[in-house]
This record gives sequence, C-alpha cells and structure tokens, in this order.
Amino acid sequence: MKPRKICVVVNSRANYGRIKSFLSAVKSHPDLELCLVVGASAMLQRFGNVRSIIERDGFTIDATVYSIVEGETPTTMAKSTGLSIIELASVFENMKPDVVLTVADRFETLATAVAASYMNIPLAHTQGGEVTGSIDESVRHAITKLAHIHFPATELAARNVVRMGEDPSSVHWTGCPAMDIVAYTDLTLPLDIFERYKGVGAELDPREPYIVVLQHPVTTEYGHGFQQIQETIEAVTKFDIQVVWLWPNVDAGSDDVSKGLRMFREQKNPENIHFYRNFSAEDYVRLIANCKCIVGNSSSAIREGSFLGVPAVNVGTRQGGREHGVNVVHVDYNRTAIESAIRKQIAHGRCSPSMIFGDGHAGKKMADILAKAEFNIQKRLTY
Amino acid sequence: MKPRKICVVVNSRANYGRIKSFLSAVKSHPDLELCLVVGASAMLQRFGNVRSIIERDGFTIDATVYSIVEGETPTTMAKSTGLSIIELASVFENMKPDVVLTVADRFETLATAVAASYMNIPLAHTQGGEVTGSIDESVRHAITKLAHIHFPATELAARNVVRMGEDPSSVHWTGCPAMDIVAYTDLTLPLDIFERYKGVGAELDPREPYIVVLQHPVTTEYGHGFQQIQETIEAVTKFDIQVVWLWPNVDAGSDDVSKGLRMFREQKNPENIHFYRNFSAEDYVRLIANCKCIVGNSSSAIREGSFLGVPAVNVGTRQGGREHGVNVVHVDYNRTAIESAIRKQIAHGRCSPSMIFGDGHAGKKMADILAKAEFNIQKRLTY
Amino acid sequence: MKPRKICVVVNSRANYGRIKSFLSAVKSHPDLELCLVVGASAMLQRFGNVRSIIERDGFTIDATVYSIVEGETPTTMAKSTGLSIIELASVFENMKPDVVLTVADRFETLATAVAASYMNIPLAHTQGGEVTGSIDESVRHAITKLAHIHFPATELAARNVVRMGEDPSSVHWTGCPAMDIVAYTDLTLPLDIFERYKGVGAELDPREPYIVVLQHPVTTEYGHGFQQIQETIEAVTKFDIQVVWLWPNVDAGSDDVSKGLRMFREQKNPENIHFYRNFSAEDYVRLIANCKCIVGNSSSAIREGSFLGVPAVNVGTRQGGREHGVNVVHVDYNRTAIESAIRKQIAHGRCSPSMIFGDGHAGKKMADILAKAEFNIQKRLTY
Amino acid sequence: MKPRKICVVVNSRANYGRIKSFLSAVKSHPDLELCLVVGASAMLQRFGNVRSIIERDGFTIDATVYSIVEGETPTTMAKSTGLSIIELASVFENMKPDVVLTVADRFETLATAVAASYMNIPLAHTQGGEVTGSIDESVRHAITKLAHIHFPATELAARNVVRMGEDPSSVHWTGCPAMDIVAYTDLTLPLDIFERYKGVGAELDPREPYIVVLQHPVTTEYGHGFQQIQETIEAVTKFDIQVVWLWPNVDAGSDDVSKGLRMFREQKNPENIHFYRNFSAEDYVRLIANCKCIVGNSSSAIREGSFLGVPAVNVGTRQGGREHGVNVVHVDYNRTAIESAIRKQIAHGRCSPSMIFGDGHAGKKMADILAKAEFNIQKRLTY
Repeated sequence: MKPRKICVVVNSRANYGRIKSFLSAVKSHPDLELCLVVGASAMLQRFGNVRSIIERDGFTIDATVYSIVEGETPTTMAKSTGLSIIELASVFENMKPDVVLTVADRFETLATAVAASYMNIPLAHTQGGEVTGSIDESVRHAITKLAHIHFPATELAARNVVRMGEDPSSVHWTGCPAMDIVAYTDLTLPLDIFERYKGVGAELDPREPYIVVLQHPVTTEYGHGFQQIQETIEAVTKFDIQVVWLWPNVDAGSDDVSKGLRMFREQKNPENIHFYRNFSAEDYVRLIANCKCIVGNSSSAIREGSFLGVPAVNVGTRQGGREHGVNVVHVDYNRTAIESAIRKQIAHGRCSPSMIFGDGHAGKKMADILAKAEFNIQKRLTY
Repeated sequence: MKPRKICVVVNSRANYGRIKSFLSAVKSHPDLELCLVVGASAMLQRFGNVRSIIERDGFTIDATVYSIVEGETPTTMAKSTGLSIIELASVFENMKPDVVLTVADRFETLATAVAASYMNIPLAHTQGGEVTGSIDESVRHAITKLAHIHFPATELAARNVVRMGEDPSSVHWTGCPAMDIVAYTDLTLPLDIFERYKGVGAELDPREPYIVVLQHPVTTEYGHGFQQIQETIEAVTKFDIQVVWLWPNVDAGSDDVSKGLRMFREQKNPENIHFYRNFSAEDYVRLIANCKCIVGNSSSAIREGSFLGVPAVNVGTRQGGREHGVNVVHVDYNRTAIESAIRKQIAHGRCSPSMIFGDGHAGKKMADILAKAEFNIQKRLTY
Repeated sequence: MKPRKICVVVNSRANYGRIKSFLSAVKSHPDLELCLVVGASAMLQRFGNVRSIIERDGFTIDATVYSIVEGETPTTMAKSTGLSIIELASVFENMKPDVVLTVADRFETLATAVAASYMNIPLAHTQGGEVTGSIDESVRHAITKLAHIHFPATELAARNVVRMGEDPSSVHWTGCPAMDIVAYTDLTLPLDIFERYKGVGAELDPREPYIVVLQHPVTTEYGHGFQQIQETIEAVTKFDIQVVWLWPNVDAGSDDVSKGLRMFREQKNPENIHFYRNFSAEDYVRLIANCKCIVGNSSSAIREGSFLGVPAVNVGTRQGGREHGVNVVHVDYNRTAIESAIRKQIAHGRCSPSMIFGDGHAGKKMADILAKAEFNIQKRLTY
Repeated sequence: MKPRKICVVVNSRANYGRIKSFLSAVKSHPDLELCLVVGASAMLQRFGNVRSIIERDGFTIDATVYSIVEGETPTTMAKSTGLSIIELASVFENMKPDVVLTVADRFETLATAVAASYMNIPLAHTQGGEVTGSIDESVRHAITKLAHIHFPATELAARNVVRMGEDPSSVHWTGCPAMDIVAYTDLTLPLDIFERYKGVGAELDPREPYIVVLQHPVTTEYGHGFQQIQETIEAVTKFDIQVVWLWPNVDAGSDDVSKGLRMFREQKNPENIHFYRNFSAEDYVRLIANCKCIVGNSSSAIREGSFLGVPAVNVGTRQGGREHGVNVVHVDYNRTAIESAIRKQIAHGRCSPSMIFGDGHAGKKMADILAKAEFNIQKRLTY
C-alpha cells in the first residue's frame, strides 16, 4: 500500500515550532509520506527566514509560496489569505495529498483550510477549541467547522470542539506538539546563544538574568498597537535587567508595534536590550526556560510557559480567555500594572509546571492516528 | 447622524432571491444606506445574467467583481474564493461599509465573510445554523464563526447557532427573506412566462400541468454528477407532463450535470421539456407555486416549497438533514425511487403550508435590527 | 553536464498545434529536458480538453494551472492574465527552468513572458514580428520586447524583430513549428473523423465536399462579435455544401460569437452543419487539407493554409496585415462579399503552396539552437 | 460634452514626482477629469507613505490598491505585477476611464499597461524610447508596444519610439513632467528640511555642504546587491562631508541593498550620514539642487540632475545607455573608481544645465494633447 501523503503548510515561525515534532513523526512513519509547503511570513527575511531553518533541520520543502501582500493592515491580511488560497489550490492540485494539516489559528492558516476542504481533501487541524482574542479567535473556530479531524491541545478544548457540533469520533485530544519540543530538549542555555543570532542592540550576557518580551499587534484593536507597545516599553525600561525583545509577527498592525520599538531604540538606544527576529524552535524554548519572566502577549508564554512553569505577564486582550497554568498573570495595557506584575513575577520565581497543553507525545500520537484514520468528506452538524 | 452603510454582496441567482426583500428594506430605511456589490456567477451570462435583473429591479450596483475561475472543479471553487477575497478586500477598503452582509452558504459567500471579518467590519449572516450536505454545510458553519450578527431562518437553526458558541444576544430569528417574496407576490402564473424567458427545448403551455426540475452538483460527491443526473433524467422522462428544467449553478461538478443534460437534449430532443437559465425571483416563485411537483435538490423546494405547500421530491444528499415541511419526500439517486416519489407527490397534490422558514417579514426585521445593533468586533466562544 | 530545462507553457488548442513538433524535439534531445505546463483554456472541457490530448500524445505534464477568469470580456481577459502571472511565477519558482518558451501572441502568452523575464529566466518566443489585428498585435510585440531569443516564422517577421531594436544575434528565422506537422502528417482524411469527435449538428460524410469555418471574436472590436458572426452565417448558409464549424476561442467577445452560433443552430437547425470544439493537431491539418475552402479569421487559414495551398476567405480585421500566400482572399464583415468570395475560392480550387511560414523543420532547429544558445539577461535597445 | 476621464496610476515615490505636474494640469483643464489610483509601494509606510503626500498636495485619490507581494525577489516582482493587473482591471471596470496613463518603466507600471490595453482603454505612456539597464529596459519597451499615445522625454527617445514601429502621429515629444517641478520650484534649501523628514542617523546642517546617495538594486543582477552597495559605502565613507542617504525602492534585491546599509549603520554608526525614506517631490528637487554631488544609480541624477547641472556619479549598469548631460560621470561597482569620481565631481562643481529631458512645460502639453487626441484602439506595426 502506498504511504499516505500528509501535507503540512508552514506559514510562520510560530507555526513551525508548533508542528515540528509532528513533521518528524510523519517523516519517520512507515505508512506516511511528508509533503511540506512553506509560505506566508515563513518565506520572508524580516521574519527570520524560517524557510532556511526548516531546511537546516533536514526537512525537504516540496513547494514554496510567497503569499503575503505587503501593508500589514486588515485589508492586506484578507488579501494575503485570498492569495494563499489561490496558490495552495494549485499546489494541492499538482501534489494530490491524502490529508492536509493546518496549524492553529493565524489568519493565513484559514487559507490552507479553505483550499483543502473545498477540494475534498481531508483536513486535519491542531489547537482547535481554545479561546483567545484577536481575529485568531474567529479563524480558529471557522477552521474547526471546515476540518475533518481535530487534534486539540487541551481537554477543555477537545470538549469545546465537540460542543461546537463536531463528530466526537473525529476529535482526538493529543496535546500540543509544541510541548514535545519542550519535553525533549536539553534546556541548558547555550553560552553563545546571544551572539549566534543576529539582531540589533546591546550585548547580552547569557550568565546574567534576563527577561523575554514579545508583544504582537491585536488585529481586532487595529490602530492601537503603537500606544499599546508604549505601555510595555515604559514598564520594561523601569527594570535594570537584560531584555531579549522579539519583533512582532506579520498580523495587521505589526507596523505600528515595530515603529514603536524602532523609535524607542533610535531615540533611547537602551543599554540592556537586544532585539531579535527569530530563534530556532529549540533555542526559543531554552531562551524562555531560563528567563526570569516572559512579558507580552505571545501564546508561548501560556503554552510552553505553563509546561515550564516560567513566570509570565500577559498584556492585554490577545490571549483573553485562554486556559493557562499558574504561571500567568494578566494585566491591561497599562505601564504601572505591567511594571508591578513583572516585579511580582520576578520576585516569585519559578512556578509549578502544568501539563494542560500536553505531555510531550503529541506529534507521534497525531501521526499514528492519521495513518489509520478513516475520513468522511461530508461533514454534518451533530446536533 | 450619517446613515449606516450596509454592504450586501450578491453572488448568484439564488443569493439574490434570498436577500431581495432585505435590499428593498435597507434602501427605504431612513437610517441605512445600501451598498450593493455583485460578483461571481451573478456576473455571468450563462447563469442568467443576474446582474441585469438586479438593475432592472431598480437597484444601483456600486461595484462589480468578476471572480469565478473557470473549470467548475473543486480546485477552481477554491481559487474563485481566493480571488473573491482579494477583490472584495479592495472593494471594502474603498467603500468603507459599516456592516457587510453575506447570504447563506454558497462557496463564494465565505469570501465575503473572510474579507469583512478580517477587516474588522461587522459581519451579518443569514441562514446560519441549518443542516445540509455538500460543502455548503461546512461553509455555513464556518461563516457563523466569523459573523458578528446572525439572522437564522428557523427557530431550530437559531438554537443551533447559539449551541455552536455564539453570543445569544447576537442571534436574531427573523425568518428567511426568501419567504417575503413568496408572501407578497401575486402568485398567478403569467401566461407569457414561458416565452418571456429564453431557453432551449419544447414550447410549453402555462395552462397545462408541469413540473419543475433543478438538480445541482454535490461538491462533496464530485465526479458523480453525470451519473446522478442520469437517474433523474430517466425518472422524469417516464412522465407525460410538461417539464421546466433549470440549468445547475456554478458549483464544482456543474459541468458534469450540464453535460448530462446537454447530451440528453441533443440525443433525445425531448418533446415536453424546456431548459431555462434563470427567472426573476418573483417569476420563479410563481413558477413553483403553480407546478405539480418540484424535483431535484434545490433548497427552494424545501424553503419556498414548504411555505407554499408544493409537493417536492428531494434527490440525494445535498439537502440531507435540512428541516422541511410535510411537502418534501426524500429519495436516493435512483431512477425507480425518483419516479415513484414523483408519481406519489403529483397524485397527492398540494400540501399544508408551513412557516418554519419565516412569516414573510424577514427583510424588514433585519433592516430594523441592523439600524440599531451594537457590534463587538472581538468575538469569543461563549462556553 | 545537466540537460537544460526547457519549460513550455501551453495555453490553448492553437498554442499546442503551434509548438508540438518542438515539444517532441526537446523531449528527444540529449542536452535538453522538457518541462511542460498546461494552463488557461487548454485546461477546460468546453475548449476541447486539450490537456487530455496532450497526455494522449505521450507528453508528461509537470504542472497544471487553472487561470481563466470567467466572463470573456476585456476585463476578464486582463484578470486571467494577471492570475496567470501569479501562478506561473510560483510554478517557475519551484521548477527552476533554464529557459521558458512562450508561443505566439494570444493574450495569456504575455503572462508567461512577464513571469519569466521578471524572474531573470531567458525567454524564448515564437511568431514574433508578424503583423495582424486584435489585441494579439500588441501582445506579440510586447513579448518581443521582453524575450531574449526569437524564433520568427517568416523572413519578413525576422527582419521586423530586428528593426524593433532586438539584437540580430538573438533572432533565428526557423519557420513556424506548425508547418512541421503539416509537412510530416499523412494528409488523407480518416473516414471516421466526423464521428470520432463529438459535437452537435448534422451528420457529415467525409467523402463529400465540405468547407471549414472558424471565426474568433476580435478583442479590439469587442461588442461587435454577434453582428460579425451573423454576416458569416448568412453567407455560409447560401451554400449547399457540408460545413465543419469550430467554436471560437476564449478571447473577449467569444460569448457573443457563440451566442450567435447557438441561436442560429437552435432556430434554424441547419441540415448540413456540424459544430466541433476541437480536433487533434494532426486531424485539424487533415481537415483543412481536404476542404474546399476555409472561412473565418483563424490564422491557420493563412499559415497552414498557405503551406497547403487551401483556398481561404479571411473575414475582417483579425488577420489584417498578416503575410500570406496566394490562397487567401480578404473580405470585410459583409454577407454578400463573404458569399461571393467563398464562391470564387471554391470555383478556383487548390492554390500553389507557399513556404513563407517555414519548410517543416522548425521544431528541430529551435531545439538545437536552444541547446547551445548563450543568453544575456540584460537586454538593450540596439539603436 | 462630458470631460474626458484621465486615469493615472501612481505606484511609487518616483512615479509621483514624474507625473505630478501633469496631475495638476489635468485637474485644472476644463475638458479633462482626473481619476487618481494609488497602488504598489506608494501605499506603504516603509517607502515613505507617498499616498499621504499625494493627499496633502490636494489631490483626491479615487481608488487605492495594495498590490505588492512581499519578498523583494524576482518572483514576487512578477507576482506583484499579476496582482496589480487583477486589481486594476476591477478598478477600471468600475471607473470607466477614457484614457489611462502609465508612468515610465518600473515593473508595476506594466500592470497598468496590460489592464488598460486589454480592456480597449486608450493607453498613454511617458518616458518611452529611452535606454537603460535593469528589467526597466524591457518593461519600458513592452509598454511602448501596448500604448496608444506616447509622451517621450527626449528627442532621441521620441525617434526611438517611432523606429520601434509606432505610428509617428501618436508620438509627442513633450519632455519629462519631472522637469516641470525643477523649473518651477524655488530651489532654496529650507533650513528645516533635515528635521522635518524623519529618518535615522546623524544630525545634518543644511548650511554645510552635503552629498546625496541613492542606489537601487539592479533586478537583472539580482543577488549582487549586497556586494554592490558595499563598494559605494566604502567609497562614500572616505569623505568628510555630510551625506543624505535614501533607502532603495521596492525592486527585487532591495532587501540586499537595505541589509548592507543597515549593517553598515549598526556597526559603524557613521557620524555624518542620515538615512531618509522619502521627500516631497519639491523638497527632493531642492535637496539635489543644492548638493555637491549625487551618487548612485537613480535616474534623477541624470534627468533632474542634467537640467540642474548637478555633478553626478552614476554607479553600475542600471542607467547604462541612458542619455545624459555633461553632469554625469559613469563608474563601475568599484570603491576606488567611485571615490575618485566623487572627488573629481565635487572639485569640478556645478555643470552647465541641459534641457534634453524637457523645458518645464511637459505636464501642460500632455494634458492639452490628451484633451483632443483621437485614438485608434487597433494598433499596427508601421513597417
């Protein structure tokens, strides 16, 4: 029997870390064949050239797709999604995968879901059923309604997917593949980590304490990003600690956030902050595993952070409603609140780890399930 | 206060009939301004030039969009959707509507939903929460998860939308605007109806009995359309009654169905069948209101048919699971079963009408609600 | 040394006949590797499913692209070209051809030229330097200005390309590959030819005399196609001779021409006319080689027709200014003039053949040249 | 009589300066109506937000189009062009202009030309017939073959357009509208110019001498941009003079050039260089009118530079073959050669001005011609 062709579309650095262990599991599975498509911001230099990282990790890329319409506005976010659908339809038409998997809830991931489901290709989805803010909230649930098989990360999320009318037999609570990396990586911080990755700003010493900041725009609050990042900047600069600051993703409003950071950097030339574009999935895990606190609104603070028990200060609405471990403190876009929360979290130190997002075997479980799954292309609301 | 700009995107003849009374209600509402976009198959001659019908009805079209990628395959269905998103994003960018409304569940209607919701424009949706077959089933529910305000047609559908995790305060059971036309149209069959519309085939006499056939492809059964239509053809030709046969819509597989019909017509040159592309919304209602039976898988047999109590034979899976009145009999793609069901339905005659799909005031209710609604752009699963 | 990858994009039935001998030559050349892309109307059923013919001829298709935006208006012609560029850029990005060849002057062929030349891939072009009407005239010369190597069909055309400022060393007068098929095909008309191809209309007898009609829309006279085809219909129906009528291509206005033909057929049900969508390249040559006269505005009447010495009546402006043999008579869109010209041409019978469009070795010559050519990506006007 | 709708598509900062005087002339012409479309990099923040400058200048923008596919590779350059065609076709379809004008030879300008000419809208073109390097050379001449009326900038260029086979009666030597701005602007350098525009780097004193550097990537030498900019950086840093350095445009390879500049800035933090994104058309003219030397490969050094007699050092192939005044010295990508040329040019000082690119009345002349021109949509090679 010919192995099942499992096509995964990787669109961003976050996507990749969230699916890497599954890619490995498919690659080494006797009944599966991996077809890898790289597109969207994963193709772009200014988002850390994820494409090269993927190739360096030993994966063969079967097709690449430039699909980001420049502008970082809500309009271009929609247009990028349209362009992605057009391109992916042609890729699938020529590749003929047996299953397509789309990762999580970024705006471009809906393109993968539309192309595959419209083309009667069974669609697998990770991270369905969770609750957050931003357009991701809508995208995630819309994908659930297009998907034929679900791999939610948490037990509650799995329950939510079923409540939304999905066939329970198509819902598999496997945990999040991002936890696999956390679980199996040697978490020692490499001493050359801050030099190996290019970036701009102050020299950092990996033996000294540091915090990590990563704050994305919130698409549903488009136009407020510049102000929002000011609050975080003001709060963070109150501390005399090293800061690893990552540039935001490609969502609408990214330009506002970046502009805020750039202006801050140009004008203040801060002595203890270094700005990075990207780390490998493993180094990113090491980075946060060893930091004193994660600040911002990245889901990694909540997901990987919970697993690791890293103190996290979550700012604003982007992760609003998301399940999390005891490591997370929520604050509004308010410099005083952010500052005070960071101070408490640093003082508190390491928290108890939580396995709500998985136990480290998600990728393997998903591959095994996909190798045997039977699909019903015609979905139907279960109510 | 400036009137709210309500933008409606009409993509097909079915779309138009399903929203026309709402268009009129918006047009005449003091607090609303109608922005009308026509795209997809509503732009095409071979689907009855719906665009001209709309203009003849007195509506001003604000923007037109050619968005169908030719081929009528699952692949082109996806690509048409991608192209539509790109185009509609530009239209919305320049038009700046306050609300966008998307109609029902055809594949292209998802494009409207993605463009609007990604652009933080409040999205209204009609006909959410219903259950059917085809890709429409997935599209409908995916749109629900992107929409900010819901106008389901039936009480059960309204309940389903809430069960899917939508905020109950955003769900308004108004009934389906298609019923408004049925309720307010003089249903007398015009004596020139069969001449006024072009088409091919036998001459028909409006004073003699006739049945109406309309069978679309089922996208999730792509590749089977040719065979499926054969069964219906074989069944229908067993009857010595006039037949009004409508060409199928633009869904993937349409070419297969059309080919079956064309071959049948070329080879058999049937003496009692006339093939039409389109009727005005009102004439279509008159047509089915006066027929002996509707055959095929059009939702109009179930929706308008239930309201009118017209005997209907629903063939195959496309309407599988849809609520309906007592007027509907379900059969498989099987010539004997279809024939026997038609025979029984004709013999039975008119059924009791049902108001499950609305009482004829949907358009007006929707306009009134939209004039005052407050929107929360940031959605959140209610569980 | 690795063979050079020669990528050819085939977009239509005309394209294919015009390049087939070159495809074979590349396929069998030791230093060349053929990469075949099929797109535009060559993907569509209603233009004769050229894709299947290509596969039946033994060529492997490396990528397919649905790129026709439906509508057949000047607007959709532009949009189809834009979509084609987007798609072909992705195809070339993943395929990495050493040379791309674009055929002649149809509107979609410019897409191939833009994608390749923008991507610094050496672009080869056939049929440059000729003069005609329609948008083809502009497209042809625009492609010449993007191309790096030219294979004009006639000596005059070659001179024209040089006069337009192209480097003479990049201009190779090889003749037109379409002549290769004419030269090497057994021209006997197969007795089953009229049955083997599906179509609609009267049964034809291959042993009886017939004429061939093929009239495309003229894009620069968009809106006049319906009237123009009436003139030809009126003229042709004056004759008591069998007629093989081919449906028009996908150019803007095609719908008008088709509508004229369809209405004529429905209303008159002519007893001696059969309408076909497509023939294989070889059967098409046989068809015109054995007819009494070719009528319409197809370039094949002029190109293959001249080589064969088949009497041709060229109607209207589409071929205006094109070089031709003694076999061609030009008339305006005028029923009387067309009728009288057909009468004279049938009476005249076979004309002396002409080799202005090539001697039957074009495909081989082109392959040999491409195997050794050196390219300068940076073009410069030679004046 | 209704005024003629003249639609101009502005795609970049360079575009705008090159057409601004014409926009004004159309706006104030009694027989013309201006329709302004802004797209491509003119929509983007990181290219100086040209859109806002246009609005501040008092022009009404009728439609905006995001059309840049991010990546700055040859592939995305092609894809951006395809996307532009799709979008502009819809814009023209809804706007129905009588004439469309496309400016010069940037890659996106071909999109305007394809959309308009395919849609049978008379196409006007500026700057045809010139000779340069980069893909611009091919684009420029391809547009000439699509255009219906030509406004070349120089006498030689006008002659070239005719030699390429264009109808002499369609060729109007009007000069370049960019010269109009030079001719009519008060050239005094505003004392706040270096503060008013944001940017990064050293503070500059407008009363002290300075040079201007602007070096774009050369698309046909894609992959060499990083190295090429090093040579210029090395040369420029040999001088103890203030430097106004402009970021490159959006052509393929722009990222390489920007990266070179960014790395240089980060690592060396040069004390006398300030990097700017954009100036208004008038301030740019003032800037170069008062500088000691322009360095790089911008056409403004040659066009506006010649008119002003500003010493210019043109680096590399991008302007290869372009006509110019005595103010220009050509050098290769070689730090020693560049340095020595700059030294000589600064020492030489102001050159005699030249009017080869126009006398300052181009915009007005073009508007007057377009108000009366008759167009023949069907082009034909004149040979």
